[in-house]
Amino acid sequence: MNEEAAGAARRGRTGRAERGGAAARRAARSTGGPGQQLTYIRRKLPNYEVLDEEGLSLIEANADTVLEEIGIEFRGDAEALKLWRDAGADVEGERVRFPKGLCRALLKTAPPVFAQHARNPARSVQIGGDATVFAPVYGPPFVRDLDGNRRYATVEDFQNFVKLAYMAPSIHHSGGTVCEPVDVPVNKRHLDMVYAHMRFSDKPFMGSVTAPERAEDTVAMAKILFGEDFVEQNTVIISLINANSPMVFDETMLGAAKVYARHNQATIITPFILAGAMSPVTVAGTLTQVLAEVLAGAAFTQLVRPGAPVVFGTFASSISMQSGAPTFGTPEPSLVSYGAAQLARRLGLPFRTGGSLTASKVSDAQAAYESANTLNSTMLAGTNFVLHAAGWLEGGLVSSYEKFMMDIDQLGMQQSFSAGVDLSDNGQAMDAIREVGPGSHYLGCAHTQANFQTAFYRSSIADNNSFEQWLAEGEKTAHQRANQLARSWLDSYEAPPIDEGADEALKDFIARRKGSMPDAFA
Amino acid sequence: MNEEAAGAARRGRTGRAERGGAAARRAARSTGGPGQQLTYIRRKLPNYEVLDEEGLSLIEANADTVLEEIGIEFRGDAEALKLWRDAGADVEGERVRFPKGLCRALLKTAPPVFAQHARNPARSVQIGGDATVFAPVYGPPFVRDLDGNRRYATVEDFQNFVKLAYMAPSIHHSGGTVCEPVDVPVNKRHLDMVYAHMRFSDKPFMGSVTAPERAEDTVAMAKILFGEDFVEQNTVIISLINANSPMVFDETMLGAAKVYARHNQATIITPFILAGAMSPVTVAGTLTQVLAEVLAGAAFTQLVRPGAPVVFGTFASSISMQSGAPTFGTPEPSLVSYGAAQLARRLGLPFRTGGSLTASKVSDAQAAYESANTLNSTMLAGTNFVLHAAGWLEGGLVSSYEKFMMDIDQLGMQQSFSAGVDLSDNGQAMDAIREVGPGSHYLGCAHTQANFQTAFYRSSIADNNSFEQWLAEGEKTAHQRANQLARSWLDSYEAPPIDEGADEALKDFIARRKGSMPDAFA
Repeated sequence: MNEEAAGAARRGRTGRAERGGAAARRAARSTGGPGQQLTYIRRKLPNYEVLDEEGLSLIEANADTVLEEIGIEFRGDAEALKLWRDAGADVEGERVRFPKGLCRALLKTAPPVFAQHARNPARSVQIGGDATVFAPVYGPPFVRDLDGNRRYATVEDFQNFVKLAYMAPSIHHSGGTVCEPVDVPVNKRHLDMVYAHMRFSDKPFMGSVTAPERAEDTVAMAKILFGEDFVEQNTVIISLINANSPMVFDETMLGAAKVYARHNQATIITPFILAGAMSPVTVAGTLTQVLAEVLAGAAFTQLVRPGAPVVFGTFASSISMQSGAPTFGTPEPSLVSYGAAQLARRLGLPFRTGGSLTASKVSDAQAAYESANTLNSTMLAGTNFVLHAAGWLEGGLVSSYEKFMMDIDQLGMQQSFSAGVDLSDNGQAMDAIREVGPGSHYLGCAHTQANFQTAFYRSSIADNNSFEQWLAEGEKTAHQRANQLARSWLDSYEAPPIDEGADEALKDFIARRKGSMPDAFA
Repeated sequence: MNEEAAGAARRGRTGRAERGGAAARRAARSTGGPGQQLTYIRRKLPNYEVLDEEGLSLIEANADTVLEEIGIEFRGDAEALKLWRDAGADVEGERVRFPKGLCRALLKTAPPVFAQHARNPARSVQIGGDATVFAPVYGPPFVRDLDGNRRYATVEDFQNFVKLAYMAPSIHHSGGTVCEPVDVPVNKRHLDMVYAHMRFSDKPFMGSVTAPERAEDTVAMAKILFGEDFVEQNTVIISLINANSPMVFDETMLGAAKVYARHNQATIITPFILAGAMSPVTVAGTLTQVLAEVLAGAAFTQLVRPGAPVVFGTFASSISMQSGAPTFGTPEPSLVSYGAAQLARRLGLPFRTGGSLTASKVSDAQAAYESANTLNSTMLAGTNFVLHAAGWLEGGLVSSYEKFMMDIDQLGMQQSFSAGVDLSDNGQAMDAIREVGPGSHYLGCAHTQANFQTAFYRSSIADNNSFEQWLAEGEKTAHQRANQLARSWLDSYEAPPIDEGADEALKDFIARRKGSMPDAFA
C-alpha cells in the first residue's frame, strides 16, 4: 500500500487509540464502549475454495462464450459504444460483443491492489491482496430506529450511522448510502451524504452514483478536502457501479463510472444478482454470467482511463422460488461468493462480495443465522471489500441500529480470527502446561496472568453470565443490549477534528450547489 | 462403509421418504413439515486448514513432549495402569508417561473409517473419511419448554427430543443424553434413555457412560435389538468419553470406555476444554494438550481391544477472563476446531468437534450468531461426527425445543452446501443464458422451470416475505415460528415400527434391571 498520503496526513487526526493509550482502551472495553480502532485486516489464513482448476476453466470458457456470442448491452451512452467500437468490439445497436480475450487484455492495466486514502492517513485502506476492509450497510430507504419504529430514513439517521461506523473499531470504512435520507430533496441529498462522511468521520468513503453530475460533485468536494492534485494522483473515493443484470449496464451507472474512472477514482463493478431472476438458478450458471458482466464492466473503466482502480464485485442472493422474495444466508449464495472470489483472483482484480445479509424483519435469530452464514463465507472467500458488513436488515430495505451494533461485534471476531494461530513460544505455552500439570487448572498460572487481557476476543453484545445473573439483570435479549449500546455510543460521540478552512469551503460549495437548482423529490 | 448390516436390515423399516414418494415430499415441504430423510453427508468440498506443515509438526512434537515428560493420569483404575505398564509406558503412581511414538504405534490398529449401524439400515452412518454425521444436543439437565418455562428436564422431554431428531431430515443420528431426565432415578434413567432411542427412533444412538454397569446395560439392550453376534461383530453404539482436562482420565470414564471397547463399540475420546481454565489461553497450547490427551485416551482403547473404533474428539470453548463463564462462537475455539481436525486427519482417526453452541439464555440473535459461527467452522474443518448439532442453549445447561428447530434448518443448509457446485451441463445453464439474453429475466425460462423445485435450499424457519405480509401475519420472530413448528411436528409424530418380540424383550430387561436395585437420586 502506498503510505505517502501527505496531503491527507496534514489534515488528519492521529486516531483515538493513539491519544488514549492502553489505560483508556481498557477503560473503554470495560464499559462496553468502542475500543482501539483497528486498521483494515491483513489476512494471515488461506482462502477457502470450492472450485478446482477444471471448474474454474470451464466457467471462464463459458463466460468468454457469453461475451462473444451473446454480448452485453451498454444502454443510453453513445460514448461508451464508441469506446468499445474503437477498442475492436462488435457493436450492434447497444449490444456489444467482445472478441475472445479483449476484456482480459484491457484489464491488464487495472491495479491488483490499490490504496484508498482517508483524510486521517491512519484510516487509509488497502483494497486487494491480503487486505479485507469492512464498510457499513448501503442503500436502505428505511430505518428501524432506537424506539423500535420502522420508518423512512432521515439525514439525522444518516449522520448517526456515519458516527457509529466512525466509532466502531472493526469498521474500516465509512461506506456510502448508509441509509437514504429521504427528507432531503433527491437531487441534493448526495451533498449532505458526502459531507456527513467527510465531517463526522475520518475514515474513507464512497461517492454518489445516481447521476454523473452528482459524481462530479463528489469529486469536487474531495478536491476541497484532500487538495486538487492529491485527488488526481490518488484514489480517495470508491463507488458502487451495479450491472443491471442480466447483461446490461445502464446510462446512470455508465455515467457515474466514467466520471470516477476519469478522475482515477475507484469503482466496484457489481452484478446485483438474485439468482433465479437475474441469473440462472444454478451456481455455475450464475458465476458464468457474473464473470461475463464484470469482465465487460471492469474493462470499460480501462477504456475510459487505463489504470483506473476497479474492483470485481458480486452481490449474491437467491430468490424463493415459491414467492419470488430474495433469500440470504443460504448455501447457494455462499457457493457463488466463494467461486466468484476465485475468479477475481485469477483475473488479478480486488474482490467485493457479501456482508451481513438477512431477509429478517427484526434483529432475531433468523437475522443472525443468515448474517453469520454470509459473513463467514465472505471472510473465508478472501473478500477484499465488504459492503453491508453491518446494519443490514430486511433484504436491504432497512438500516437497523441494533443490527449494526450486533454485526460490528461479529466483525471484530472475524478480524481476530483472520490473524490465525500464534506459534511463538508464548503461543505454544509449553511452560504453562509444565507449570499446571494433570488435574489442576490454568486460571492463576503465570502464562495465563501474562496473557489474559488479550487472550480471547471479548464480545460487546454477548451475555455469558449465569442464568441467575441474567435473570436478575432483566432477562435482556441481544437486541435489547444492542439498543442500549447504540444509545450510549451516540451519546458519547465526538466528531474528529477538521481543518476549519476546508470545512467552510465544503459548506460554501454545498450551499452554492443547492442554490443552483430547485428541489426535486423523484 | 460396510453395507452388510443384514441383522439390522431385517428389523428395519425402509424410511418415510421411500414410502411417500415425490408427491408426499412436496406436500411435506409445502407445509413446513419434515421432508425427505437425508442420509449422512458425503462432503464434496475441501477442508479448511489454519495450520501449515510447520505448525502441525511443531504441535505434534510438543504433544509428544507432554506425553513423555509430563504424562497423563489414569485415575482409580488399576487395570488401566497395568495395561499401560505392560505396553511399555512409565507408570508412577497414577501418572503414565509414554515413550516417544508409543501412542501413535498403538493407534495403528484403530480404523480410520467405520460404520455405525442403525436398526433401520437406511439410517446407518459412516464415521470418518468424507462423511459428516449430525447428532443432537447432549447433556443438559434443563429444558426451555414450549410454554417458555426453564425447568428440569423429564423423560417426556427426552422422548420428545428423540422424536424430533427422528423426524428431522438432516439429523442423521439420535444422539445420547438429549436432555437429562431428572424425574427418573439416576441409577435407572439410562435404561429409559436407551429404550427411547431404540423405540422412538430408528437412527443410530449413543450409550450410557455414567458407570460401567450402565454401559453393560446399554450393550445388553443393543444385543436384544440387533442380535448378540451382530453386536460383537459390528458397531451399533458410539459413546462419549470425556477427558478430565488437563491430562486426567477418571475412573468413571475409563470404566465405560473399557466396556465399549471390549464389545467392539465406538468411543469418542474428548478433552472437554474451556481454554484458560482446562488448557492454556492460547490456541497452539490448547491444541498441544488436546492432542496429547487424545493420543493417550485413544491408544488406551486399543490396549483394551485392538481395532475398537475410536474417534478423536475436541470440545472447544474459551472462558471469559473477566467472569470465568464459558463463551462460544468466538474466534479462538474456531481456530482450535480447525487445527484439531487437521491433527486428527494426520493421525488417521475420525474427528468430532463443534455443533451449534451458544452461551445465550434464549433463542435470540446471540444464540444464532454463536451457533452459526460454531457450525460453519465445524463443517469446513471436515468434522465427521457433530454432537450438539441442534438444540443446545445456555452453554449446554438447557435443551431448547425452539433452538432445536432453528438448528436443524441450518443443518439442512450445511448439507446442501457440502454437495458443492454442480458443473454438469444443466449446472452450467448456458442454454438459459442464451434463451434469456440481456435485459430480460430468468423466472419463466425453460431451465428455471425444469429446476426450480430443487434449485435452492428452502428454509423451514426463515420468513422471506414482504414487511407488509409479515406484519399481517403477526410480526412473528424466528423463535415464535420455531415454537409453532416444534408443536406441529410433535403432534404429527408416528413411531417407526419395531419387532414386537424385541420390544417386549427390551421392556422385560428394563423391568428386571429396575427391580434389581433401589432408586438412587444422587
